[in-house]
Amino acid sequence: MANSKYEYVRNFELDDSALPSTWMVVRIDGRGFHGFSDMHTFDKPNDLKALGVMNKAAIEVMKNIRDITIAYGQSDEYSFVLPPSCNLYSRRISKIISTVVSLFASNYAMHWSEYFPDRKLLVAPCFDARLVCYPTKKVLRDYLSWRQADCHINNLYNTAFWAIVHSGKSEQEAEEKLRGTFSKDKNEILFSEFNINYNSLAPVYRKGSVIIRKETEVKSISAQTGKEVSRQKRVPTVLHDDIIGDKFWEEHPELLASNTEVASL
Amino acid sequence: MANSKYEYVRNFELDDSALPSTWMVVRIDGRGFHGFSDMHTFDKPNDLKALGVMNKAAIEVMKNIRDITIAYGQSDEYSFVLPPSCNLYSRRISKIISTVVSLFASNYAMHWSEYFPDRKLLVAPCFDARLVCYPTKKVLRDYLSWRQADCHINNLYNTAFWAIVHSGKSEQEAEEKLRGTFSKDKNEILFSEFNINYNSLAPVYRKGSVIIRKETEVKSISAQTGKEVSRQKRVPTVLHDDIIGDKFWEEHPELLASNTEVASL
Amino acid sequence: MANSKYEYVRNFELDDSALPSTWMVVRIDGRGFHGFSDMHTFDKPNDLKALGVMNKAAIEVMKNIRDITIAYGQSDEYSFVLPPSCNLYSRRISKIISTVVSLFASNYAMHWSEYFPDRKLLVAPCFDARLVCYPTKKVLRDYLSWRQADCHINNLYNTAFWAIVHSGKSEQEAEEKLRGTFSKDKNEILFSEFNINYNSLAPVYRKGSVIIRKETEVKSISAQTGKEVSRQKRVPTVLHDDIIGDKFWEEHPELLASNTEVASL
Amino acid sequence: MANSKYEYVRNFELDDSALPSTWMVVRIDGRGFHGFSDMHTFDKPNDLKALGVMNKAAIEVMKNIRDITIAYGQSDEYSFVLPPSCNLYSRRISKIISTVVSLFASNYAMHWSEYFPDRKLLVAPCFDARLVCYPTKKVLRDYLSWRQADCHINNLYNTAFWAIVHSGKSEQEAEEKLRGTFSKDKNEILFSEFNINYNSLAPVYRKGSVIIRKETEVKSISAQTGKEVSRQKRVPTVLHDDIIGDKFWEEHPELLASNTEVASL
Repeated sequence: MANSKYEYVRNFELDDSALPSTWMVVRIDGRGFHGFSDMHTFDKPNDLKALGVMNKAAIEVMKNIRDITIAYGQSDEYSFVLPPSCNLYSRRISKIISTVVSLFASNYAMHWSEYFPDRKLLVAPCFDARLVCYPTKKVLRDYLSWRQADCHINNLYNTAFWAIVHSGKSEQEAEEKLRGTFSKDKNEILFSEFNINYNSLAPVYRKGSVIIRKETEVKSISAQTGKEVSRQKRVPTVLHDDIIGDKFWEEHPELLASNTEVASL
Repeated sequence: MANSKYEYVRNFELDDSALPSTWMVVRIDGRGFHGFSDMHTFDKPNDLKALGVMNKAAIEVMKNIRDITIAYGQSDEYSFVLPPSCNLYSRRISKIISTVVSLFASNYAMHWSEYFPDRKLLVAPCFDARLVCYPTKKVLRDYLSWRQADCHINNLYNTAFWAIVHSGKSEQEAEEKLRGTFSKDKNEILFSEFNINYNSLAPVYRKGSVIIRKETEVKSISAQTGKEVSRQKRVPTVLHDDIIGDKFWEEHPELLASNTEVASL
Repeated sequence: MANSKYEYVRNFELDDSALPSTWMVVRIDGRGFHGFSDMHTFDKPNDLKALGVMNKAAIEVMKNIRDITIAYGQSDEYSFVLPPSCNLYSRRISKIISTVVSLFASNYAMHWSEYFPDRKLLVAPCFDARLVCYPTKKVLRDYLSWRQADCHINNLYNTAFWAIVHSGKSEQEAEEKLRGTFSKDKNEILFSEFNINYNSLAPVYRKGSVIIRKETEVKSISAQTGKEVSRQKRVPTVLHDDIIGDKFWEEHPELLASNTEVASL
Repeated sequence: MANSKYEYVRNFELDDSALPSTWMVVRIDGRGFHGFSDMHTFDKPNDLKALGVMNKAAIEVMKNIRDITIAYGQSDEYSFVLPPSCNLYSRRISKIISTVVSLFASNYAMHWSEYFPDRKLLVAPCFDARLVCYPTKKVLRDYLSWRQADCHINNLYNTAFWAIVHSGKSEQEAEEKLRGTFSKDKNEILFSEFNINYNSLAPVYRKGSVIIRKETEVKSISAQTGKEVSRQKRVPTVLHDDIIGDKFWEEHPELLASNTEVASL
């Protein structure tokens, strides 16, 4: 066949399998989302609708890729966790990364108008992605804690920053006022100057979004009887829980259960 | 800072840089596009509008990522070429792959309705992607020849297959009729039984699509004078040329020029 | 400096770090040792002196590279285990592999004459090496069990094979006699035909060699007092224990202790 | 078989193939050779016998691994070049590195006494090794130029340094005297203070050692006729030529010939 003469070029494709029996985390991150959020006039410090599109895209990724057990998102980033036993695409890193990130991006574009019916999507959303392997439950939890701690730190800063700006100061003045401050200082500024109790803000901003598959009663019309029937189904569900402490993991022991399992290879 | 206690998890991110001074090719490939094309009732053997969305998405990728010098697409796949001197994202494979594929996927979703105004996009388009390094001009050209030869082989088969099916046979009968045939046999079947001269079919089907940056006269209204001004600009332009022979490369010597250059690192 | 013009070539050295917090195993394997053992007229099925050189070389490797906690050897191979917390050479695979294997090879050559005072080393001993990461204690133990089970299977076969050959048969006849036999068949052949109780053979042959660092009383002459003093020191010590069952690991709990530790990075 | 239950651990061995059709360079480097040279009382700034052992070990590596076309050594390092068409061990990096470095180390140990008949080898010589891929002839030549330029710079410094020390100064005084000097300054110091014309020193010190396979007349006694016969053979031969300029490469065009060839895969 005419083709075979060129087919040797396939040998340049090197294997990029992830180490078996490790937790794989795919983290996607908005590219140029500072400009993107300005262009689409997102609310500051947080835009609930923009977070809504992110969460919707993540839910669709989880519906499509059943191996993902938990996802965590904040701002313009999302992390998807695949357990040690996962053998998706024989754990080839490029395949996993590209499938997750392209699904996320196209879903973001498709569902945009449901969250912003009055605003046209002006440029194509773009995300970079990486895959990182974590060998133990402990390191995986530390990874997720790292992202949620990051959410807290950024959100506290942004909340204080935009409160100052919205009060009439320049962005530069806000920046100077906050330089070198600790968490308790920002809490104090918010409370004493703007009457904002940071801890009473909506958890979606302070904690970010956790998606797990929850047993849910799903109702449908039986094709045979024409009557409404209900059944239990595991549906990707958004929570805004703390995932740094032990409570969340004790309530959902199945999330870390597969750690000791060796992947069936 | 509370964050730093967890920040060690970053050390699990391993470097995945591509070898410097090699040609990098990112090939994206539709995932589940057999079902996707059925669901959206694409014409068989080729759907000009579906190829239009693919080409549009590829053009947008090239507008966004200026390092890409040439792209080649056919069916539900596209290859993007980055020259040896390219230092995009310090040549980190995950970053390059994910940026290209997410841009492609979201553009596909965004521009769908321009090509299918009457048909809603029913599921999110998804693509996998890989990055392969080719050390020499020769191997790069062989890679592109491999894809275009593949386009030819598949398209000849599909053209014959669907001609038979559209004439009233079952898909199984068509498959049996074509089993073991050579190119000349399929050409003969098309000509004698269906009066189709394969070589006179539109090049977009037989050759696929090549996108290069062509010097183009671009007209715009001057903000200062209010008059129309024109200037030369390098605009991603779709061709359907043969890229296996030497002619194309002799006409566009700049495409392979950077091969001898060492990347400025 | 004249040098700097060329120094860019360093950028082609890609990072090859092993995933943090995993067990690293370096396995070295004799290259061409079939011919090597013929050339140096090793005893069959086992040559105690040849195993002695292997063990001596492994001990010297462990004395030199303090990060190794346990080693296991049989025939012409040796595995060296580095714990999850190990940060030797920042876990760069090439550095670790090459250091271990070159130390092993040069020690093999240097100590040869202590074990074979009457036989000159005729060719340079050569070993290949690989490094494999294992994320959990369980997989690490399974790895070591795999090697010891391999030792058992090969040694039982070789013991039967050479018993048959030494009784006057050809190697081909021995091979045919053993084809398709199970362990119990080989045990039976050894016992009924050659009066050999396989399980009473020396453990060094049946179990291979395990090296761990044992607290040992070391005596020396004090430079100050001129008197003999003794102190406790952890000395690499060869055992021939079973490492498939739990007993060995329960007796040496420190060997797996670091599994839960995250490497200090 | 008892073995198979554990055999899954093989799946943790990840592929580490080098990119096809690139030049592969294995560079080995003495580990702890500062102490090694003190312990064995090497002459300063250069020890001809020590360089002899290095060259002997490199020749033996080239005799064993026929794929190596050229090697370059200086001080306690050696680089071995494998051409783009080389398919040794399917280009698996660990296998190539470990084979080369273990052969080098064991040969170093074996041949030590031929060069130092009066001095016992006190510790096992140890080398680290890395493999780097270079995609073009130009980068490969730049790599070799880098090493030879490094040889020159170090040797000029060391020659001046030890001349000063041997004249009765302390090592610290020598260091201070040379701090911030350029090549011409060191040449001047050597000439005016020590009457040494640097450029007339033996090329082995100034240029290092290049090993290529030279057509050589090899004489042997015919087993059949009992007479001396001679035949041409390609024998690894040590030169001390300049390899930065073009002359060497023009005289040995075969060394770079395979660059345009695609490896037969």
